[in-house]
Amino acid sequence: MEKLECVFCDKKYPVDVFNPFCPDCAEPLLVSGPKKKRIFHLDEKLAIRMFRDFLPLETTDPGLSLGEGDTPLLKLDRLMTKFNLPLVLAKNETVNPTASFKDRGSIVAVHKAISLGIRKIGTISTGNMAGSTAAYAAKARLKSVIFVKEDTTKEKILSAGIYGPVLVKVKGDYGQLFRKSFEIGRKYGIYFMNSVDPFRIEGYKVTGYEIFLQLDARAPDYIFTPVSAGGHLIGLMRAYLDLKEDGFIQKMPVFVGVQAKGCSPLAHAFARGCTTFSRFPNPQTIAHAISNPNPPGGNIVLKMIRENKGMMLSVTEAEILKAQTLLAEYEGLFCDPASATVLAGLLQLSKKSKLKMRDRIVLIITGSGLKTIEDLDAGKIDYHEASVESLEKKVANVLL
Amino acid sequence: MEKLECVFCDKKYPVDVFNPFCPDCAEPLLVSGPKKKRIFHLDEKLAIRMFRDFLPLETTDPGLSLGEGDTPLLKLDRLMTKFNLPLVLAKNETVNPTASFKDRGSIVAVHKAISLGIRKIGTISTGNMAGSTAAYAAKARLKSVIFVKEDTTKEKILSAGIYGPVLVKVKGDYGQLFRKSFEIGRKYGIYFMNSVDPFRIEGYKVTGYEIFLQLDARAPDYIFTPVSAGGHLIGLMRAYLDLKEDGFIQKMPVFVGVQAKGCSPLAHAFARGCTTFSRFPNPQTIAHAISNPNPPGGNIVLKMIRENKGMMLSVTEAEILKAQTLLAEYEGLFCDPASATVLAGLLQLSKKSKLKMRDRIVLIITGSGLKTIEDLDAGKIDYHEASVESLEKKVANVLL
Repeated sequence: MEKLECVFCDKKYPVDVFNPFCPDCAEPLLVSGPKKKRIFHLDEKLAIRMFRDFLPLETTDPGLSLGEGDTPLLKLDRLMTKFNLPLVLAKNETVNPTASFKDRGSIVAVHKAISLGIRKIGTISTGNMAGSTAAYAAKARLKSVIFVKEDTTKEKILSAGIYGPVLVKVKGDYGQLFRKSFEIGRKYGIYFMNSVDPFRIEGYKVTGYEIFLQLDARAPDYIFTPVSAGGHLIGLMRAYLDLKEDGFIQKMPVFVGVQAKGCSPLAHAFARGCTTFSRFPNPQTIAHAISNPNPPGGNIVLKMIRENKGMMLSVTEAEILKAQTLLAEYEGLFCDPASATVLAGLLQLSKKSKLKMRDRIVLIITGSGLKTIEDLDAGKIDYHEASVESLEKKVANVLL
Repeated sequence: MEKLECVFCDKKYPVDVFNPFCPDCAEPLLVSGPKKKRIFHLDEKLAIRMFRDFLPLETTDPGLSLGEGDTPLLKLDRLMTKFNLPLVLAKNETVNPTASFKDRGSIVAVHKAISLGIRKIGTISTGNMAGSTAAYAAKARLKSVIFVKEDTTKEKILSAGIYGPVLVKVKGDYGQLFRKSFEIGRKYGIYFMNSVDPFRIEGYKVTGYEIFLQLDARAPDYIFTPVSAGGHLIGLMRAYLDLKEDGFIQKMPVFVGVQAKGCSPLAHAFARGCTTFSRFPNPQTIAHAISNPNPPGGNIVLKMIRENKGMMLSVTEAEILKAQTLLAEYEGLFCDPASATVLAGLLQLSKKSKLKMRDRIVLIITGSGLKTIEDLDAGKIDYHEASVESLEKKVANVLL
């Protein structure tokens, strides 16, 4: 049976999903072991079955799956040409069942809930996580309890509420709410599988293995990913640490965590060489999905980035919006602003000529633009008006 | 080289993508031949490569793909139990790159455009087709021209406009606009790959082959699909006609085309035993994606349904909304109202006890609920409000 481990205090604890934090330093605990022989089950169709040896699950139940994973890795030919870049590939996580990478974590955490006999799960969220957790709960016949911030848009409430969770709009500080959720969870038997839940993080590893196999069993040179609470990046790094440990790769990819300048506690700490971050004052960015001023996994991210020669970048609002448009107009990919930060980060890095032409770069596109339509600058989208009668003239004018 | 064929007049014509209609009876032409030995290339990852022998393409270019296809077939355990149904599976087309089944057709039609040296493509659309066509055009470096109806919502305009097409909001009759688009296309060299484009329809066949393979090389007993212009259902039926012709199956599935009662020209014609349909007066339904009063492929659908012992059903607005909620709350699937018609249709049929317990039923879920959030009845989604301080009490009240 696996344990939970504090990577700072180097101590192990039995699994307690209601309180997965170090009793000494209060940092999130991560899964440790059990040691086993691990192979890829390439004959399996379902991602959690293909990579089951790398996951802390005794059994996998296809009946809990919504078909998450096995997402495309798309070559961004047009952007490579436009910006004279080496090989750039987008791992398109927006085609997951609830349109974001969160489903990768939800399926593993829901398995764990069921194996522990827990019938109520929950999360706090500004959007993607709410929908994912509520959807997987519905499929698994679990009750779900979702806390969203007071200013969450009606669209996001509806897109999670449709699955029938107990949904509460909460006024107050998000960091306080994070802690409060675990307090409530312990008391009422609700497993809050929040952003840095250790089993959710294990689910994110699967994306890393898929990329490795899609590149014909080689690691990319760079992996860019947006960073909010830190769980996603931690999971991706753990995937490649597994691959290195098992001898599949010799060298780790360079992990590049990207934040919006308007909320960049980790990029800020990294730039100053700090081993811990400070709360980011007055966060303000259109990349709502990664606007977390006080990321619970932040210190683990800084430690792992440091140990594995990665880096943290931050990008401006203008760079984010430009990158979102570039991905759509050149590559047919419509992502949310948070995802667009990875292209913005790559363009920034390429200007500093840090890249070699033989490098292979993967951008993780984490969430769909369909959930953040209200954030699109409507004025930027050009359209014309005509009647059926005047249409031909209009088309001729525009095209000729 | 393939030809185009009128299934009513039984005559063949050379391919003309600018005018794919029968010169005698004006019905849409479908692809015919060329005859070739066909196998499944099961070692291929990309759907259009795996099933390339069944598609009218000389070559397939992965560089044009956004990773469409290979969608999950999910067992709807909870709904099967709730309604005492035989095996029911959902083919989840919402996880395609632009969140609908349209991508299956776009990838094939875009290949055809490029092989013909055409650099401008277009479509008329109320939503899903606009986004799909514009996205695939972007990826393929083609210019796209999209005509949308006057009353198209800002959200839908933005979700297509992000890809950078020439976008025109057109006032006037949709049927007239359909004909006008081909007139403009011929004149300005724009390939209008509309709903019943013969190559788009060939792309929809791939969904049919995937279902066959996902069922371990057997045909389901029923396939339910929403019907608008008719192209999707025609493609699905053609897939199984191919499989029958090649000896993979002996018996066709029963195809059930479902329409909203508020716009049901084909269900109406079918119920009265007519071989042709009449324009539906004053269409009105929340299932906007299938609200087509004058479906261009309608007569072909009626002919194929008749010849293959299928059926057409219609369902009420209340049945549609109920089915949309059931799919989300019981199965974690958030689809648009148009897609929900298939579950509504199945429940209707099951009440008439037409089904056997050994039947295997597939529901095609065609489009994501994320594009029709504005149609959700906000009043139906329950949520609570609290502060961090009052949260525990609120949760206790709701849960206990």
